[in-house]
Amino acid sequence: MNPSRRLLLKHLAFRAAEISPRDGLVSIPPDGERFVAWPEVMERSKRLATAMVAWGVRPGDRIATLAFNDHRHIDAYFAVPCLGATLHPINVRWNLEEMVSVLEHTRDRIVFVDAGLMDRAIALADRCPWIEHLVRMGPRASDGDPPAVRSGVTISDHEELLETSDPIADWPDPEEHDVMAMCSTSGTTGIPKTVAYSHRTTCLHTMAIGLTDCMRLSGQDTLLAVVPMFHALGWCFPYACGMLGSRLVLPHRDLRPERLLDLLVEHEVTTSVAVPTVWDAVLAAVTASPGRWDLGRLERIVSGGAAPTASMIRGFRDQHGVEVIHSWGMTEINPVCTMSPAATTREEAALDPDDRLRHQQVAGRPLPGLTLEIEDEDGRPLPHDGASIGRLLVSGWWVAEEYAFGHPDGERFGADGRLDTGDVASIDDHGRMAIRDRGKDMIKSGGEWISSLALERAIGDFPEVATCAVVARPDERWGERPIAVVSIAPGASLDLATLQRRLAENFEPWQCPDDLILVDSIPLTSTGKIDKKTLRTRFLV
Amino acid sequence: MNPSRRLLLKHLAFRAAEISPRDGLVSIPPDGERFVAWPEVMERSKRLATAMVAWGVRPGDRIATLAFNDHRHIDAYFAVPCLGATLHPINVRWNLEEMVSVLEHTRDRIVFVDAGLMDRAIALADRCPWIEHLVRMGPRASDGDPPAVRSGVTISDHEELLETSDPIADWPDPEEHDVMAMCSTSGTTGIPKTVAYSHRTTCLHTMAIGLTDCMRLSGQDTLLAVVPMFHALGWCFPYACGMLGSRLVLPHRDLRPERLLDLLVEHEVTTSVAVPTVWDAVLAAVTASPGRWDLGRLERIVSGGAAPTASMIRGFRDQHGVEVIHSWGMTEINPVCTMSPAATTREEAALDPDDRLRHQQVAGRPLPGLTLEIEDEDGRPLPHDGASIGRLLVSGWWVAEEYAFGHPDGERFGADGRLDTGDVASIDDHGRMAIRDRGKDMIKSGGEWISSLALERAIGDFPEVATCAVVARPDERWGERPIAVVSIAPGASLDLATLQRRLAENFEPWQCPDDLILVDSIPLTSTGKIDKKTLRTRFLV
Repeated sequence: MNPSRRLLLKHLAFRAAEISPRDGLVSIPPDGERFVAWPEVMERSKRLATAMVAWGVRPGDRIATLAFNDHRHIDAYFAVPCLGATLHPINVRWNLEEMVSVLEHTRDRIVFVDAGLMDRAIALADRCPWIEHLVRMGPRASDGDPPAVRSGVTISDHEELLETSDPIADWPDPEEHDVMAMCSTSGTTGIPKTVAYSHRTTCLHTMAIGLTDCMRLSGQDTLLAVVPMFHALGWCFPYACGMLGSRLVLPHRDLRPERLLDLLVEHEVTTSVAVPTVWDAVLAAVTASPGRWDLGRLERIVSGGAAPTASMIRGFRDQHGVEVIHSWGMTEINPVCTMSPAATTREEAALDPDDRLRHQQVAGRPLPGLTLEIEDEDGRPLPHDGASIGRLLVSGWWVAEEYAFGHPDGERFGADGRLDTGDVASIDDHGRMAIRDRGKDMIKSGGEWISSLALERAIGDFPEVATCAVVARPDERWGERPIAVVSIAPGASLDLATLQRRLAENFEPWQCPDDLILVDSIPLTSTGKIDKKTLRTRFLV
Repeated sequence: MNPSRRLLLKHLAFRAAEISPRDGLVSIPPDGERFVAWPEVMERSKRLATAMVAWGVRPGDRIATLAFNDHRHIDAYFAVPCLGATLHPINVRWNLEEMVSVLEHTRDRIVFVDAGLMDRAIALADRCPWIEHLVRMGPRASDGDPPAVRSGVTISDHEELLETSDPIADWPDPEEHDVMAMCSTSGTTGIPKTVAYSHRTTCLHTMAIGLTDCMRLSGQDTLLAVVPMFHALGWCFPYACGMLGSRLVLPHRDLRPERLLDLLVEHEVTTSVAVPTVWDAVLAAVTASPGRWDLGRLERIVSGGAAPTASMIRGFRDQHGVEVIHSWGMTEINPVCTMSPAATTREEAALDPDDRLRHQQVAGRPLPGLTLEIEDEDGRPLPHDGASIGRLLVSGWWVAEEYAFGHPDGERFGADGRLDTGDVASIDDHGRMAIRDRGKDMIKSGGEWISSLALERAIGDFPEVATCAVVARPDERWGERPIAVVSIAPGASLDLATLQRRLAENFEPWQCPDDLILVDSIPLTSTGKIDKKTLRTRFLV
């Protein structure tokens, strides 16, 4: 197949430079706001490509990023895949062990690092002998001793690399099934798992993001990307904006609701994407200060990663005229699977607003190219009647085929092309899917996964602990928070502060349980497993 | 690749049955209006598939249609490709010779025929020994003698086939590069040429049609499809509506402006697609009868096949609040290449309406996945400055690689994947393309191509004629009309009526020249070819 007919990211991502040359990125890193027009995005990517070629980067090499949403991160986002290498954005919120366990597989040669995360990158390089280069993204470092790093690792300045490199003449022509990115996500065992995205799957997904009946994204939009670029490729929004010529506002690290509200107003943002935790906080903040922020320009926001509440959808709708679009996806689905705008059919458009709201709360319909099915325990298909509830399976154009390096969770990829999502769902007679329960023992806090098994293993190692279970407690702010339920050894004792202090060695503070409940014995199921259902009923109501 | 990951039409075209089950087709054939809900469209297609399987239809077999836009034509449109066979819609406006010359290549086994075109189909079957079945689409034939047809050909009733066939259990899984349709278009030599559309190219094109920045097509739309389904697969609009769950209004044969206006109003149509000839006539009719038709529901119309005039765009905009979107494409591009809505970027949205109108008149920007280039005579790339004019080349995801059975025009397909469009164009610094001239000797009348060479050959055969040239005269109603410029043999004479009468044996009336200009000698270029440029200047101003 001639390269021009292949589904390659380079054919989509730089379209904005041609059609919308005066629009681009508004990037707000700590060293100050900067506007980067789309042609300049292309130019910077081409310079960065030359620098990587000079380091001997070859097709298939993996290049990590450890960074927030800003224009420098975008440079790597566009340059690495278009050069034929593999982009690997690391979740900055993970603990060091999680990062190391992923990099043991991906063996990234280069890490592009936000200036504020250099300490973590240096610690990572210390543990990962295959890392050759750290590229520091931020203002030029002030004079003084460069940071100490293990020998064999260079530290370069990102802006200096761009200045000293000429733009690459032509992008290479990879095959469309070649891997353009790898995204890792927490696994049930505590070991993150990694999914490979090809040029093809990312192009198809990015096209779907531009459909009217997805979220009406257009080159006329100004999109505030709150969803981190390290989360499942930022849901491909950077590429979608590069395809359409939209303005893309990148807020960097500080995501306090007041700051987001300032950005929404100042940059006349029309649409934005974030987890419901963020939108709940934004709504609370704007409600607490009437008149301080006018959201008149904001048209619609996408809330993904967990279900939005009716009161949040209603609050945005009634107080600000903003449509909340619920989106559901998985890292294994590149990642968006469903979108649930208020109305995409004539029938829905004619509904009463509160009936439409009911549909906005559920995950919604799969994008064109994807198929959803539900099955009972014996693998029999269940009817799409809105009432039948069963295992949710996804298949289609951008569903992954496997984990990149194998993983115990890999059995969810069926030989028939169907992915067992681990969720339990219903589908109604208009194709709208609703998640009803989660099959696996994962806790979702503020849009991030926490492995209950990893916490259980760590706590179970405490000498005081006989048995331990970690379960999710519903939380108004974070959606869910982990709670430890522990039966202690005879004569021993344990308190929450001790538990949190010990876990802090290997877990980030947000990953540690909020509460400790001591019990005489942990209830077990008939097969001898911890009965989390009973635990939840007993302790978390 | 697992079939679920292949770009197959069956994954897109029936999505409406799942997500928008109460919407569907409004079909208005001569035997009366009928609503066919999307689940019924799927059911009918599955029944028709069974009937074709019973006739031994196998993957790769070619199945023609000779029909107008209605729900029965849709049955074949969805069933044939999803069954793995190749759909071949014949242009009903062609003369018999053109049809035969195409079928000599495609060798269609079955022809689905509108009841009003049975005479032509029987004549075609008489000339094409490979035709086995004619399927008559229309109301049940009244009792009486069945029409005479050559032996070896069966005539079946379409509705009876559906009634007597059970739905096929599962659609097969072709490869995505397999051919799902063939579309033929008039060639410069008068011999039509045929382009193969694969499942892959049609899926990609159909996805692009659903982009916000294409024409904002949504499941909320009611689309009146004036563009014939035999024109380059009806620009894939039937499939796009089947993907999104839009309502699709199919007007059958009668496209008089008054009837179209009645349909627009009665069915609360929000968008429609047709050639500018149709829109000019519609605008004239609505203007001539103030108050008779209220176009308040109509939001935007796509005008393709030739450039709309500023006065037409302005008329729809100022009198009816309707946006005219210019689209440009070719049968060789599956077929849509560019769309030119009033604004797709923030910069355009901020423009004065008349500045936007200037952009609506030009062909506009290529859809994502396609690339436009202009070159000078020596193949050097020309700048995108809006002023430089050169040969227009297209490459990308759904550009054909060749003509299906070879054709003298086939040299336009470059080994580098680029298609020489035969047009001469400029591209501005925002990626907007404007067609400036036509390279080849084709005449476009009412959206249909007429080959000047075919007419010149036929007229040149008249004993009275020494030399003959056929050129296009600008025409207010049809865009262009053919004019014959003839130098006659010494002592001979020729008049227009004689010329038209003789041509009528092999040409349809609309294909014959409107005028005959007798000259002493036809001007020639330095290389001895007919100098059409001079002819146009001398006779057509």
